[in-house]
Amino acid sequence: MRGEEKAYAAAGVDLAAAARIKGRIADLARSTYGPRVLAGVGPFGGLFDLEGLEGRVLVASADGVGTKTKIALALGKVEGLGFDLVNHCINDILALGAEPLFFLDYIAAEKLSEDLIPKIISGIAEACREAGCALLGGETAEMPGIYLPGQLDLVGFIVGVVERERIIDGSRIEEGDLILGLPSSGLHTNGYSLVRKIFGEERRELERYYPELGGALGEELLRPHRLYLKILKPALHLVKGLAHITGGGIPGNLRRILPEGLAARIEKSSWEIPPIFKLIRERGKVSEEEMFEVFNMGIGMIAVCSPKDLAEFKKLVPEALLIGEVIKAQEPKVILC
Amino acid sequence: MRGEEKAYAAAGVDLAAAARIKGRIADLARSTYGPRVLAGVGPFGGLFDLEGLEGRVLVASADGVGTKTKIALALGKVEGLGFDLVNHCINDILALGAEPLFFLDYIAAEKLSEDLIPKIISGIAEACREAGCALLGGETAEMPGIYLPGQLDLVGFIVGVVERERIIDGSRIEEGDLILGLPSSGLHTNGYSLVRKIFGEERRELERYYPELGGALGEELLRPHRLYLKILKPALHLVKGLAHITGGGIPGNLRRILPEGLAARIEKSSWEIPPIFKLIRERGKVSEEEMFEVFNMGIGMIAVCSPKDLAEFKKLVPEALLIGEVIKAQEPKVILC
Repeated sequence: MRGEEKAYAAAGVDLAAAARIKGRIADLARSTYGPRVLAGVGPFGGLFDLEGLEGRVLVASADGVGTKTKIALALGKVEGLGFDLVNHCINDILALGAEPLFFLDYIAAEKLSEDLIPKIISGIAEACREAGCALLGGETAEMPGIYLPGQLDLVGFIVGVVERERIIDGSRIEEGDLILGLPSSGLHTNGYSLVRKIFGEERRELERYYPELGGALGEELLRPHRLYLKILKPALHLVKGLAHITGGGIPGNLRRILPEGLAARIEKSSWEIPPIFKLIRERGKVSEEEMFEVFNMGIGMIAVCSPKDLAEFKKLVPEALLIGEVIKAQEPKVILC
Repeated sequence: MRGEEKAYAAAGVDLAAAARIKGRIADLARSTYGPRVLAGVGPFGGLFDLEGLEGRVLVASADGVGTKTKIALALGKVEGLGFDLVNHCINDILALGAEPLFFLDYIAAEKLSEDLIPKIISGIAEACREAGCALLGGETAEMPGIYLPGQLDLVGFIVGVVERERIIDGSRIEEGDLILGLPSSGLHTNGYSLVRKIFGEERRELERYYPELGGALGEELLRPHRLYLKILKPALHLVKGLAHITGGGIPGNLRRILPEGLAARIEKSSWEIPPIFKLIRERGKVSEEEMFEVFNMGIGMIAVCSPKDLAEFKKLVPEALLIGEVIKAQEPKVILC
C-alpha cells in the first residue's frame, strides 16, 4: 500500500505506519507475559486468567504522566516516561494494598512517531517486567487537530488484586498513630505545568547546570517516578493507611485517607526538602503553602501505622522517616508545622 | 482558595475547578454501581469484588473515540461521546465473548471545562448503566501545551469476563462457515480525520442539510457508536468468531480472526451501503477500496457461524444479514466481491 496516494494518509492518519508500530508493540508486550496471560490473545482484547484468585478483590486505576512528556520530548529522552506511567499507576493501587496484575497503555499524538512510540512502549514493558505486571494491551492513536504538533499524551490503566481482609483504606487509623514518609526520587509526575511556566521548556534552559542540583535541570526533572511496591510489600500487614503523594501534594492526598474526627500533623523539619523544590520555589516566587499543594516536596508515599508497630515497620522499611502523627480534630485535615 | 492569586492556576492548571468537577463525576459514577463495587471505594483506585467469578477469564481493552470529539465540540453536542466511548470498548471485548464488568475513563484537555466535562461523564455513566457496567474510576487532566485550545481527548478502559470454554477467538472457523453482518448506526468512531479533511469542521458546514441524508451532516456524523451486547448475547453460543468493525474496516478487522488457510469472501451487494458513506466517497473522491479500509460501510459487527446454525442465529438475531462465506485460501484475507 506504500507509495500509493491515500486520502486517509493525506488527512494525517497513516494506517500502514500505525500497523508497523503495533507490530513492534506486540513483541514488547509479549516480553511481559506470565502464565496468566492466555496464549492466543485475541485482537480485540487481552485475556487474563483468574484461576486461583477466588475471593479476591480487583483494584483498578487510570492515570497519566501529565506534561512531563513535554520535558522528555524537548530533551529527546522518552525512555523514562514508561516507568513514570507504570510506577505511578502501581503506586495508586498499592495505596489500597493491591499488587498489580496487568496494565494497558494509551498513547496519542498529532502524528505517531515510528521512532518515539516504540521507545516509550519499551520503557512501559520494562517497568511492567520489573513490577511483575503484564502489559496486556493498549492503543496508539493518531489525532490530527487535537494535539499540538510534536506533543503526545500518555495514559495508563492498571488492574491489581488484594485479599478482601487486607484492603488498606485508612478506616482503622486512630489518634496517636504515626505517619511515616518514603522519599520521592524527584517531582515524580506532578507540577510540570508550573515548572514549565517558571523555567520554560527550551532545551537550552533544561540543559543548564545548577550547582545546587549537582547536574542539569532537565536531568533532575526527568527522574522516573519511584515504585514503592517492593519496598512496602513486606510491611503492608503493619500499615493502616497509605497515601500516594501525587497532584494535591501531602495535604491533598493524606487528607483523603483520614477518618472523621482526625487530622494529620506533619513536621516539615523532619525531612530534608530536596534542592529541586527549593530552586522551584525561589525562581517561581511560589508560596510555601502552594509548593506543598502542587509538589510532593520529597515525600512520595506516606504510610500510617500504630506506634506499637513502629520498630517492626522501620526494620522492614529502613528508609521510612517519621514525619508526623495523627491527632484529634473537627474535620479531616493535614496541618503542616 | 478562590480569589487568591495562585502560581499553578496562572500556569494553566486550576486545582479547585478540577476538584469541583471530580465531585460531580463521583456522583455520576455512583449511579452505575452494582453490588460488586465495594462500599468505601478508596481514593486511589476502585474496588471490584470477584466473588462467584471463579475460573473465569478477564478480558481487557483500551480505546478512544478518535477525532469525533472535534465534530461534537464544534456543534456543542458532547452527550453522545460517552456512548461512543463505552459502546466501542464493550463491543471490543464482546468480540471475545465477554460481558463488561467495569469501565474507567480518561479525559484530558488544554483547559477542563466545568460545563463540558460533566456532560461527557454523564453520557459515560448513562452508557455504563445501560450496559450493566460499573464506572469504577477515571482521571481528568488539564494539560496546557499538549492539547490544542478547545480540544480534548477521551479514552476508555474496559474489563469484562468470559467463561474459559466460551472464549470466542475464531480458531474453530472452517471452510463453508457463513459470515453475518450487523448494521452500524453510522461511522461509529472511525474515519473522522478523513471526514473533517473533506467537509471541514465548521459549524456552518456541519449544520448543512443533505437531502440524501434526510438531515444535517453533523447530526449524521454524531450518531453514537452502536452497542451489540444485548442483541448478540442470546446467540453467542452459536458464534465461532466475532469482528468489531473499527479502524481498518471490514478487511482489516475480519482478517484478524481468520485461521491460517482461510479467507472471507464478502458480497458487497448483500447490504445497502448507507447514504453517508456514498456522500463521503463522492465528495472526497476516495476510492472504494480505501472507503472499505477506513469506514465500516454500514456493518458494525461481523459474526461467523456454521451453516447448520444459520436458522437458529437468524431467529435469535433477526437483523443479521448474510454477507459472505469462509473459503480456502493461501493466507487469511478478506475478498470484497
